[in-house]
Amino acid sequence: MKIIIAPDSFKESLTALQVAQAIEIGFKRIFPDAEYYKIPMADGGEGTVQSLIDAWQGTVIKTQVTAPLGNTVIAEWGLSADQKTAIIEMAAASGLHLVPEQQRNPLITTSYGTGELIKAALDYGVTKIILGIGGSATNDAGVGMLQALGAKFTDVQGNELPFGGAALQHLQQIQLDTLVPHLANVQFEVACDVDNPLCGETGASATFGPQKGATPNMVQQLDTALAHFAKIVAQQYHKEINHIAGAGAAGGMGAGLQLLPHCQLKAGVEIIISATQLAHYIKDADLVITGEGRIDGQTIHGKTPIGVAKVAKQFNKPVIAIAGCLRSDYEVVYDGGIDAVFPIIRNLASLEETLALGKDNLISTAQNIARLIKLTQA
Amino acid sequence: MKIIIAPDSFKESLTALQVAQAIEIGFKRIFPDAEYYKIPMADGGEGTVQSLIDAWQGTVIKTQVTAPLGNTVIAEWGLSADQKTAIIEMAAASGLHLVPEQQRNPLITTSYGTGELIKAALDYGVTKIILGIGGSATNDAGVGMLQALGAKFTDVQGNELPFGGAALQHLQQIQLDTLVPHLANVQFEVACDVDNPLCGETGASATFGPQKGATPNMVQQLDTALAHFAKIVAQQYHKEINHIAGAGAAGGMGAGLQLLPHCQLKAGVEIIISATQLAHYIKDADLVITGEGRIDGQTIHGKTPIGVAKVAKQFNKPVIAIAGCLRSDYEVVYDGGIDAVFPIIRNLASLEETLALGKDNLISTAQNIARLIKLTQA
Repeated sequence: MKIIIAPDSFKESLTALQVAQAIEIGFKRIFPDAEYYKIPMADGGEGTVQSLIDAWQGTVIKTQVTAPLGNTVIAEWGLSADQKTAIIEMAAASGLHLVPEQQRNPLITTSYGTGELIKAALDYGVTKIILGIGGSATNDAGVGMLQALGAKFTDVQGNELPFGGAALQHLQQIQLDTLVPHLANVQFEVACDVDNPLCGETGASATFGPQKGATPNMVQQLDTALAHFAKIVAQQYHKEINHIAGAGAAGGMGAGLQLLPHCQLKAGVEIIISATQLAHYIKDADLVITGEGRIDGQTIHGKTPIGVAKVAKQFNKPVIAIAGCLRSDYEVVYDGGIDAVFPIIRNLASLEETLALGKDNLISTAQNIARLIKLTQA
Repeated sequence: MKIIIAPDSFKESLTALQVAQAIEIGFKRIFPDAEYYKIPMADGGEGTVQSLIDAWQGTVIKTQVTAPLGNTVIAEWGLSADQKTAIIEMAAASGLHLVPEQQRNPLITTSYGTGELIKAALDYGVTKIILGIGGSATNDAGVGMLQALGAKFTDVQGNELPFGGAALQHLQQIQLDTLVPHLANVQFEVACDVDNPLCGETGASATFGPQKGATPNMVQQLDTALAHFAKIVAQQYHKEINHIAGAGAAGGMGAGLQLLPHCQLKAGVEIIISATQLAHYIKDADLVITGEGRIDGQTIHGKTPIGVAKVAKQFNKPVIAIAGCLRSDYEVVYDGGIDAVFPIIRNLASLEETLALGKDNLISTAQNIARLIKLTQA
């Protein structure tokens, strides 16, 4: 029996690899001779770097970069064992969690640090960069990121624009021929699970600005600045970046990335599925086990268990999901290809205790699932 | 596919029948054409009357009887549809919960009300009485119960003893020929899951007295009184009731019951298994599902799921248990014949909310178990 274990992480409790290991322990008690393949998964959000490093047996690299307010931060990113692919989470350099709540101000926060991480990856000679763009503190259309990579954004006096989305209202001229040359050889895959445009009522500023600290006035100011940026891009490069689905992701990062030579916005879980060669493992498997910290009605919107189930169903494989907890609307996942779902909580306890028991509860649940499978095979 | 659903109640949440119904709902979503048999179970403790009434499609009867302190209480008991068998819980008439905490005093509490319930059942012409004796407030060796049934217990002056265990130290003479005559035609099956003797260090008074309100002095006084009772029984009837396993159950009720014509102390779950004809249903079943509110290391000591599993394993049937919660030491139940165990909690919530969600969570868990079974059959 060949069993593929491809879960996401259980947030605040276990990495995806730890989840997979616990499931394997439980199953091995009942099926010691089965073949197990542990594929740590992610959906482009928190935990993606860790999962891909574990899947690739890659390396964590720490790089000092510019934080959203201009101070510095040590950010971690991942490099595959063959040094051809990097995995970068924007939040590590430009995340909202790096800005104290009282100082949150998307008029001035910059994505420059994310550009520095990309530059660090380029220095290793990678040919592919997977970029997760969730959780950013910025609303600068990725301009800071592009500045770090050598692009120049100047005002009418020819002065370089300062950091932040507000400054974009003064943009006069973009210069891309100063970009790091190696970018021409690099494919970007950007994990993007929203389809918001750059501007307008459902744009970056209106949708995500408030959670980054924008007042209604600031939202207005930022929306105008980003629209001006899009206008300059259109004039100089004949590219309509405003209405690309996902242009508004991460404070307009989805739009700014369009100025790089080779960039695709894709569903996060699709990128990870491809990067981990999940289909290759699943195609001759007997059983696929996935999981996530919480499974609910939102799970069908691009979360890992459904992504894994889709691949499994291409090959008509059974899929079991194991969840830290289940919300009452979870049953929609059955339509997404998950055949059965089991929550792991064994007892009422505090959240803290329950998170600490995650591994034990996973082993126990996996064991009982395996016992039930064995029973029905007998 | 023939499926037997034989769970205990989930205490404070669902009766055994409600548990069985919820499991059936979940399974029927996946196996609508299977044959389902719902057998509400119990282990002789709380919920036994309800389970047997549901299993028998019997009747609840309310009878006003004497409470432990001599006041009155309306107690419920059950009568089978054919009116041949009664199910009585001693706690309904003589339970500790009927005595306010400050008034708990096993020197004076009486089991008289339990005798009155038995008498009410005799009035229906039953030929069998199943008696659960857990949770009593009394330490009177069942003498109150025997008094209610017509027996006479007198002191050296020939005066009837007053209520309570302490009075037994003055016992001079027992008269049983005044017992209700119909008792000769009635078989008692007493659910008893402890093997304590009547007296001594592990006897009724020392072991159970303190939780009924006995001080160390009262324990001493009661132990002496019960020993005197045993001595008089031995003198008059040549019966050694002190060392019968279970004689010390329910404040010596296990001993006093020996003065009835036909009485057997048995493991509670065995009585219920017999009363519900569980083996008859299981013998040609394909799957047995049991469950209890909590499954843990104690479950192997005479609790319902293990009793059900034992019957199932006589016929080599697979057994799945569903639990309100699992304690970490639950795995010993595998050795007791349970093949797989699934807890139903889907999410952290308050105890109150979790109890209220019991039915939904049961349905959900049953459905996923059924889905997994179907998957492996495909």
